[in-house]
Amino acid sequence: MRFLSLIALAAATMISAAHAEDGYDLWLRYRPVEKQALVRYRAAATEVVSASHSATAKVTSDELVRGLSGLLAKKIATGTTIHGNGAVLFGTPANSKTIAGLKLPLAGLGPEGYVIKSATANGRKITVIAGNSDVGALYGAFRFLKEIQARAPVDRLAIVSAPKVKLRLLNHWDNLDATIERGYAGGSIFNWWTLPEHVPPRLVDYARANASLGINGTVLINVNASSLILTPGYIAKVARIADTFRPYGIKVYLVARFSAPMEIGRLTTADPLDPKVRAWWRNKADEIYHAIPDFGGFLVKANSEGQPGPQDYGRNHADGANMLAEALAPHGGVVMWRAFVYSHEVPDDRIKQAYNEFKPFDGKFADNVILQVKNGALDFQPREPFSALFGATPRTNTGMELQITKEYLGFNTHLVYLGSMWQEVFQSDTYAKGAGSTVAKVIVFNNKLTLMAGVSNIGADRNWCGSIFDQANWYAFGRLAWDPDAKADAIAADWVKLTFNANPAFDQPVVAMMMGSRETAVNYMTPLGLAHQMGTSGHYGPGPWVDDAGRQDWNPVYYHRAGKDGIGFDRTATGSNAVAQYFPPVAEKFSRVETTPENLLLWFHHLPWDYKMASGRTLWDELVTRYGEGEDAVHAMGAEWAKLKPYVDDERFAITADYLRIQARDAKLWRDASVAYFQSMSGLPLPSGMRAPAHSLSYYKQLSWPYAPGQGSPGRKVTPPPEEETQP
Amino acid sequence: MRFLSLIALAAATMISAAHAEDGYDLWLRYRPVEKQALVRYRAAATEVVSASHSATAKVTSDELVRGLSGLLAKKIATGTTIHGNGAVLFGTPANSKTIAGLKLPLAGLGPEGYVIKSATANGRKITVIAGNSDVGALYGAFRFLKEIQARAPVDRLAIVSAPKVKLRLLNHWDNLDATIERGYAGGSIFNWWTLPEHVPPRLVDYARANASLGINGTVLINVNASSLILTPGYIAKVARIADTFRPYGIKVYLVARFSAPMEIGRLTTADPLDPKVRAWWRNKADEIYHAIPDFGGFLVKANSEGQPGPQDYGRNHADGANMLAEALAPHGGVVMWRAFVYSHEVPDDRIKQAYNEFKPFDGKFADNVILQVKNGALDFQPREPFSALFGATPRTNTGMELQITKEYLGFNTHLVYLGSMWQEVFQSDTYAKGAGSTVAKVIVFNNKLTLMAGVSNIGADRNWCGSIFDQANWYAFGRLAWDPDAKADAIAADWVKLTFNANPAFDQPVVAMMMGSRETAVNYMTPLGLAHQMGTSGHYGPGPWVDDAGRQDWNPVYYHRAGKDGIGFDRTATGSNAVAQYFPPVAEKFSRVETTPENLLLWFHHLPWDYKMASGRTLWDELVTRYGEGEDAVHAMGAEWAKLKPYVDDERFAITADYLRIQARDAKLWRDASVAYFQSMSGLPLPSGMRAPAHSLSYYKQLSWPYAPGQGSPGRKVTPPPEEETQP
Repeated sequence: MRFLSLIALAAATMISAAHAEDGYDLWLRYRPVEKQALVRYRAAATEVVSASHSATAKVTSDELVRGLSGLLAKKIATGTTIHGNGAVLFGTPANSKTIAGLKLPLAGLGPEGYVIKSATANGRKITVIAGNSDVGALYGAFRFLKEIQARAPVDRLAIVSAPKVKLRLLNHWDNLDATIERGYAGGSIFNWWTLPEHVPPRLVDYARANASLGINGTVLINVNASSLILTPGYIAKVARIADTFRPYGIKVYLVARFSAPMEIGRLTTADPLDPKVRAWWRNKADEIYHAIPDFGGFLVKANSEGQPGPQDYGRNHADGANMLAEALAPHGGVVMWRAFVYSHEVPDDRIKQAYNEFKPFDGKFADNVILQVKNGALDFQPREPFSALFGATPRTNTGMELQITKEYLGFNTHLVYLGSMWQEVFQSDTYAKGAGSTVAKVIVFNNKLTLMAGVSNIGADRNWCGSIFDQANWYAFGRLAWDPDAKADAIAADWVKLTFNANPAFDQPVVAMMMGSRETAVNYMTPLGLAHQMGTSGHYGPGPWVDDAGRQDWNPVYYHRAGKDGIGFDRTATGSNAVAQYFPPVAEKFSRVETTPENLLLWFHHLPWDYKMASGRTLWDELVTRYGEGEDAVHAMGAEWAKLKPYVDDERFAITADYLRIQARDAKLWRDASVAYFQSMSGLPLPSGMRAPAHSLSYYKQLSWPYAPGQGSPGRKVTPPPEEETQP
Repeated sequence: MRFLSLIALAAATMISAAHAEDGYDLWLRYRPVEKQALVRYRAAATEVVSASHSATAKVTSDELVRGLSGLLAKKIATGTTIHGNGAVLFGTPANSKTIAGLKLPLAGLGPEGYVIKSATANGRKITVIAGNSDVGALYGAFRFLKEIQARAPVDRLAIVSAPKVKLRLLNHWDNLDATIERGYAGGSIFNWWTLPEHVPPRLVDYARANASLGINGTVLINVNASSLILTPGYIAKVARIADTFRPYGIKVYLVARFSAPMEIGRLTTADPLDPKVRAWWRNKADEIYHAIPDFGGFLVKANSEGQPGPQDYGRNHADGANMLAEALAPHGGVVMWRAFVYSHEVPDDRIKQAYNEFKPFDGKFADNVILQVKNGALDFQPREPFSALFGATPRTNTGMELQITKEYLGFNTHLVYLGSMWQEVFQSDTYAKGAGSTVAKVIVFNNKLTLMAGVSNIGADRNWCGSIFDQANWYAFGRLAWDPDAKADAIAADWVKLTFNANPAFDQPVVAMMMGSRETAVNYMTPLGLAHQMGTSGHYGPGPWVDDAGRQDWNPVYYHRAGKDGIGFDRTATGSNAVAQYFPPVAEKFSRVETTPENLLLWFHHLPWDYKMASGRTLWDELVTRYGEGEDAVHAMGAEWAKLKPYVDDERFAITADYLRIQARDAKLWRDASVAYFQSMSGLPLPSGMRAPAHSLSYYKQLSWPYAPGQGSPGRKVTPPPEEETQP
């Protein structure tokens, strides 16, 4: 009877556990391993042992207990000493004599690296997870759990790992009113309204997920910032978040609005060379560090898209950045200064402007300033060549900004794995110091302070990212921030195993689908090096005809330059000569049509419609063919996913299947609208066998998505209160 | 070994079940009953039996299985025939011969009533849950589960219940961009962007929760509406929601923006007497019903706060409402026409205006029109007298609009149970047909079409309502919509038992706390009949000094009229004479200071500061005392809740404790700011022993909450596409 009621209880609780398969657990699901593997893994993890009592050690122990209890379907004991075989000992040489005695290869791993080793201690077979700091051991603990989640053997472990990049940060474009600019996963998870009194458990789970990837910092608010975040009431809220994240090795950063001294201070200028302005920022930094001793620093968007900056006072970017750097330096803080800057006047090819703005100031920035450069020179397009700034500023710390949220890649409803896109960028050769100077190498070795920043796709949706597969992009960002040379397919494979299951019949087709997904999106949106063909504001549907978007270089027509004569943007010496910003071998390659990769062809060259492609097709036929291939590939993804239903729970299967239907609808729309428009330019017939667009061009032109998500903050005018008089 | 692993599995799954105690399950938690009661309840529910195969019967069966499996911690079988004692048979006399044979008292219960009876059938002791329709049986099934959840005996059941009100509706003030006007629980749960392709499971749980209370309709969008909702693309989305809700007996309704024929049609007028306009609405109604055969109808906010309406064309409210009613009538749809209307010109006491606008048109509205009248004449204040419109329009269907979301009652962070406030309204005597003509009676008996509408407090927050205790207000609204004479304390007791547990040591103090909470909020915000003292726009913090809010009757000073001579709004014959809108005995009572209840004193009378109160204190001393009592009572709630920690899970304990801290902070602020301001009017010393406000009046005046939630839709201008050409 008692036995039966236990079965019943297990059944009843399993009903509710099954119900909870909604994506909230991300890649930290910790569901029980298969029966046949249970005995093996149980033997390898019988207890969790640590001698450290720090907050970080506490969360490490909790995570190991949570993970192992789930994976091994049994209660895992904790203690300060080893009781038997299978103990999992974690810590540092400083807080564990056993670890110190094992002489692990910890030298050179820095404060965040870790070693995981199968060892013998006190005559017992144990697994030791060691770092030079408790945070290193925490990272190792997540790695150990990952090995079991991925069903790797854990009886002869000898893992040594350390991050190649120092600052691995998420950038949240979250507004103080809980909306998110370019957010496609609901509102902000940062509950400003109920802080500092209330910290929801979700913030702890956010910290866990980030720590599991080694992400060690987060910028809490939008680069288009409100200076209210720097008032005492908000600093108290930020401090409470910092307290929550600290055990997980995560520092908080804020955005500094350049005009804050005028908006929340009582100054009449924000001139970075004004002594009163400098004093204001020094005092503000002191105030912040008083509340948050390990505050990370400031991210700044200055003199860009209407944001205030040093140029408003006739000063330059170095003047502005160095002023903030000076205020933060005594506390060890850093300034991340965005290079996403383009002139009001559009004097020249927009993509040249960031380079032109910053290259002259190389070497003028303080040591604790990092230029934060987007992967491409334009703006997070489905495909761009790497930014010419990588390698061009050897005397200035230069970090990478990637966009995890898919502003130009179909939001949350299009399945597009970004790992392969980022890998393409990291493995591009800049030739900054000769062949082999990949972007990854330039970022890692060129700088004293290294930085990888990812614009977050996280929101309050239960599944965090608005879809299940967008979780993979958060995951891949973290993995590549730790090691920019990591392989996108291996990362995808890990993610699939942890997020769904480790069944090859499922994993392999899903990884294949993910690895092809980015090229698919490029094909149905912007094939052959086209870029920025999305509609105004929303950046969702196709808008190649748009020519009235406020300024010339916001218009798709500015970028495709299609006409009767051909299509593409001449960026060679006969055009804007943007190619000259690259190091000579790269410049040379992109200057010549024949050596330019076809997938970047129209980015660099304006070519006639009858230009002959490698396929033997004309450029026009090739363009139409690529759009169609994009559309077809989305249908193929849908068909593939349908076959995988037996391997996935109902809820995550359904949302993915439904979104693939949306993606198929949109891919068709993109293909049809683009073909209809470019046909109106080329005047050419479709290649034989290709179907005509479903509607006339005028139909596509009048489509709009006024309520497309991610369009940012309410237009409501906000008047910050005067400083020192904020709400209690 | 097998036994042990089952224990382990149960333990592991219980860990994750415990983690899930986040409020998502609302009052439908179905956690196992206590061991000592298990045998008893298991005997009473051994299997679920039904002969019906309708979609409603399916969800009824699913709910009984889910509920009973959870409560009884065992798997419950389903079938079409009774196998033994303890069968739970549900259905209708039409689809079950057994039910037909039991001759249950179903006559007169209508399509939504139900009977639950312990009976004998085929020689077995069973429980029968019967309705005249499958939806009636569904309601009965939820009631049966509730009896077990509340630990009532279920072996001799004889429950007969039917709703007193026909239309029991939620009104969502959700915008198409997923923000919610006056929403304090995150973004909208209606995922317009991914509909119609994707229906998240949450919408099913929303339907379950509503059906559990008998709520049978929902208006999906804000009364300040976008006409885009009436375009084909959105109608397809609405249809998918309707399909999802239909099995649960819930109809969908939309808001009709009066100017839609011009905005999405191609008309140049929206004049309700124009034949082309009438034809447009008829066609639109036909189009909607083609997609949604059981569409409920339209809610309309017209000529109110800037919304378009018939008066724009020199027509009256009846002209406007009847035009829409004519379009809906062939399909059985209704028009809910809001009486929340006040003039642009503020010619007179604002609270008189709705009555003045609508009373003259009594009897002019079509049969399928319902006036939707707020409980009070102003706007969802912590306390107002009942609206004089109740009983004043006997020849017009008149329904009640309550606000579940606490726009003026501290949002989600103040614990304020609204059941007692609503009971106060329903039990107020209008004297419309002599003594005993309570508001509840007037609503129920005065109309052919009866309506109870509640402005929803539901959002995408995991706990639905932004706090645990705000769930009680959704619950209480549903219960009172079913029966406006239900008792607020009994409803609170049910909610506490279902939501937390049925332990008297916990339930009784919590119910007491809830029942006192509304008077507490009145005391710290607007004691003695004061109203609308909140700051502009946000309606959160105190703003008694505000006198610049755009129009005179948006200002707190308009409502309190405090000066050196005294305080209060004279609404007797010597003032605005609003009292004359009530039936004579009520008008008489409110006309005289001595017979006006002290809790409405300053609503009706302007009195000198030294007016002597029942307590023996002067009005000034009483006012200060009441503010202090409010503040003290919040502290007492916090202390009481702290004592109850042993009875509550950690997560729901913490959010409630944290929010009570916020409420205490705010109650102090309200008290201090109000006392500081009114003292500047009265010029009188504080009563002896009362502490001075913590800051000067000027400190309080400059406080602001620019990012207070619920301030509605982005200011972004939206241009709807021309009709018949929306996005695919």
